[in-house]
Amino acid sequence: MADWHTTVTPPALARLLATARLPEPATARRPAYRTLAGQIRLLVTEGRLPVGARLPAERELASALDLSRTTVATAYETLRGDGYLLSRRGSGSWTALPEGAPPPSDALHPVPPDEQGSILDLGVAALPAPQPWLGRAAARAVELLPHYATGHGHYPTGVPVLREAVARRYTERGLPTTPDQILVTTGAMGGLHLVQRVLIGRGDRVAVEAPSYAHTLQALRLSGARLVPVPYAPPPFRREPAEQAGPQDPEEPQWDLGEWRRVLRGAAPKAAYVIPDFHNPTGALIGEQQRRELLAAARAAGSIVLADETTAELGWGVPESTPLPRPMAALDRSAQVVTVGSAGKLLWGGLRIGWVRAAPALVRRLATERVYSDVGTPVLDQLIAAELLNEPLPAVRTHQLDRLRATAHAFAAALPEHLPRWRFRMPPGGLALWVSTDGLSGAALAQAGERAGIRIASGNRFGSDGAFEHHIRLPTGGATARGRAATAGG
Amino acid sequence: MADWHTTVTPPALARLLATARLPEPATARRPAYRTLAGQIRLLVTEGRLPVGARLPAERELASALDLSRTTVATAYETLRGDGYLLSRRGSGSWTALPEGAPPPSDALHPVPPDEQGSILDLGVAALPAPQPWLGRAAARAVELLPHYATGHGHYPTGVPVLREAVARRYTERGLPTTPDQILVTTGAMGGLHLVQRVLIGRGDRVAVEAPSYAHTLQALRLSGARLVPVPYAPPPFRREPAEQAGPQDPEEPQWDLGEWRRVLRGAAPKAAYVIPDFHNPTGALIGEQQRRELLAAARAAGSIVLADETTAELGWGVPESTPLPRPMAALDRSAQVVTVGSAGKLLWGGLRIGWVRAAPALVRRLATERVYSDVGTPVLDQLIAAELLNEPLPAVRTHQLDRLRATAHAFAAALPEHLPRWRFRMPPGGLALWVSTDGLSGAALAQAGERAGIRIASGNRFGSDGAFEHHIRLPTGGATARGRAATAGG
Repeated sequence: MADWHTTVTPPALARLLATARLPEPATARRPAYRTLAGQIRLLVTEGRLPVGARLPAERELASALDLSRTTVATAYETLRGDGYLLSRRGSGSWTALPEGAPPPSDALHPVPPDEQGSILDLGVAALPAPQPWLGRAAARAVELLPHYATGHGHYPTGVPVLREAVARRYTERGLPTTPDQILVTTGAMGGLHLVQRVLIGRGDRVAVEAPSYAHTLQALRLSGARLVPVPYAPPPFRREPAEQAGPQDPEEPQWDLGEWRRVLRGAAPKAAYVIPDFHNPTGALIGEQQRRELLAAARAAGSIVLADETTAELGWGVPESTPLPRPMAALDRSAQVVTVGSAGKLLWGGLRIGWVRAAPALVRRLATERVYSDVGTPVLDQLIAAELLNEPLPAVRTHQLDRLRATAHAFAAALPEHLPRWRFRMPPGGLALWVSTDGLSGAALAQAGERAGIRIASGNRFGSDGAFEHHIRLPTGGATARGRAATAGG
Repeated sequence: MADWHTTVTPPALARLLATARLPEPATARRPAYRTLAGQIRLLVTEGRLPVGARLPAERELASALDLSRTTVATAYETLRGDGYLLSRRGSGSWTALPEGAPPPSDALHPVPPDEQGSILDLGVAALPAPQPWLGRAAARAVELLPHYATGHGHYPTGVPVLREAVARRYTERGLPTTPDQILVTTGAMGGLHLVQRVLIGRGDRVAVEAPSYAHTLQALRLSGARLVPVPYAPPPFRREPAEQAGPQDPEEPQWDLGEWRRVLRGAAPKAAYVIPDFHNPTGALIGEQQRRELLAAARAAGSIVLADETTAELGWGVPESTPLPRPMAALDRSAQVVTVGSAGKLLWGGLRIGWVRAAPALVRRLATERVYSDVGTPVLDQLIAAELLNEPLPAVRTHQLDRLRATAHAFAAALPEHLPRWRFRMPPGGLALWVSTDGLSGAALAQAGERAGIRIASGNRFGSDGAFEHHIRLPTGGATARGRAATAGG
């Protein structure tokens, strides 16, 4: 068998280890070698460190972690004894699973619907497709297909009708946009991946909110970026018991702007990655004044602002009459904002339609670069998304937001009843509740959930440094009945 | 404006420069600084070096290219004078386009069909969609959609019906395959990109055929892999004039197996990337015995064999009664072959459906990794591909192969008439003719073509080291009428 082992470098493993916080031991302090072994085992069983990954030599890892070589050697020996590490003289050591162990599972990686069986998936924050609108739009798209089928079907920047529909939607939201500022991507993650490949190099610093979207944090980590976390202040969930927490007012302070200014000035990061609209995982909405201040600080530091608007249309808690803050790019006078958007949450994840909004020159560069990854996004899904973003959009939005709102309220009613010491704050929108678990380990809850057939996303996956151990993210995109069952069981 | 410049490292620029062969000067030798300036300008105008890329400092580039610092300084000065380089003290130099220059164009990057206007695109080797089958399959897929629309639509490994259809097709081709060996990807390029990210690290050597598929070569280069070219022997186009060249017999020697053994033994590359079935760009078909010998040499060297089967179904020159060589993986007794396949050529590029066939454990690892790029491939296109790979496949194949065969024969008839000294050999299949241009520079032809509204893919794009300057690739996937017009004009 050929050598399929990926080598994990010492800094990469150190970064992963920082995200693997173990449940506190009930009794005395745990020795360092056991902590290290336990963390590596956790990373393997959660699927965050792949099976077959070659680990660094003991001496190198000891140096990277500032531990003694004996500590690392003992940790490796422990893992070998438990079947989580295989070694061969001259070839090093690589991760493994002991015989009979269940395959690695990652609560944040989607379980395909057809494979879910009896698992209740509270890991993925997503909605079912809005029917009957999706079916109708798909049928209309098929009618348009003959026009496109005479060509080779490659649209590196996107099919014109979708670029126009996305540009029009931005214009409606208060941000005049032309189609040449839009690059259609394969999901928002496809857009983030492209932007990251083109704009962010190995070793570049990226300032991120703490907490932030787990997959972006991990993607940045894996690409060699160095994350600089900037906490929210005050954390929305800390303020008061759930039953007393009123909905958030966007103009109340959310970002800790003093800390943002300090980080941007001090670290001069290549980029600041933010989710200003119904943030994942907290659902927070940032007001215009705070957006302006962050933009000014980023401009002074020469940092790109990477605004993730995946959840921007999900304001289910904002009254119709209340104007939403304008998109970050609308407040940007120096073309430093790159926006990533998505049809995956409001329309359907199965379409895999996202986009990047940027200066036309950057759109062209990204389009060139993607020839070496996905080449383009499928044509038919672009036609469907364009259909849905036009006439049916208000009805689709109402349908999807009603579902998110109903589930959030069902959780909000059930949580204080079943788990009175857990804390959360009702967000103004978004896909989840961000719940503080009264000191219970989110990782331990996730492990217990796995045994009970419930996938739970542990809070520390949303931190850049293992923070948020005592939190979980509770997605509100599933059907309400499922939501109730989960609450009763959790 | 924030800093959007990508830094091009000296080794990366050196690799790019090796692919930028200039037309020979008519008169005396060109001084080194002019060659360097001309090469950088060519890379910029062809879109291979992005506008806004920060070039290495003069001293670093001089050292990487083994040139004097004065030579590099003079080249940069020349480029500045022509408007292709901007510099600012303390910020370095970055590429630019002079005012009024046309935007960079890359003959190998698809021109979106709607933007083609009057350009005749001979850069992209692709077929229009097979109608009416595509439309019918799309309509049937829409009928299945409600079943899928109740879930979140994320299928990291692919929708089961397509994984089954692809596995069945492999089994039909003589390679028993189960669905858990199949990962559906966003085009074959999406599969190559994933495999490369997971299996091939920076600095790893990858042995490649010379010539080979231009985009894979460039993707490998950009990811930091070191290419080791292994030439064909004898080059199919050299043997005899076009009118005398009979169709290729797969059992005649194609790969230079002595050279493959030497390279695999000497360089022990991480992977060997080959296109054994109707190779891009030459159309060559490799017989089973040669496949076995390369596999044995790769096994001895511990190299993965990455078999690109994008063109495997395109054997338009092979009589129905002749059995095709079995896929590489069918001859592999040590699980060292990773296969990438595609529906993009036989069915339609606009579906963006490709796949990886590999051991189930590797399929799972790739599925995990893609959560940080495209997450999954759109559902509807997978359903359409599954429909087309089932009942309609024989009719679709006949339709598409008829088109490729007709265009190839039209070219073969027209070329000797209009360009009697150009040489090519009729391939047994594939998407193009690989034409030797009697000493004419392919790059110069491409530039002349650009002025005349014809995009031509210069041969050196298919070499790993600037070889094949005196070749062009002539795609045969377009309509026959267009093919004739191009030949008359070229």
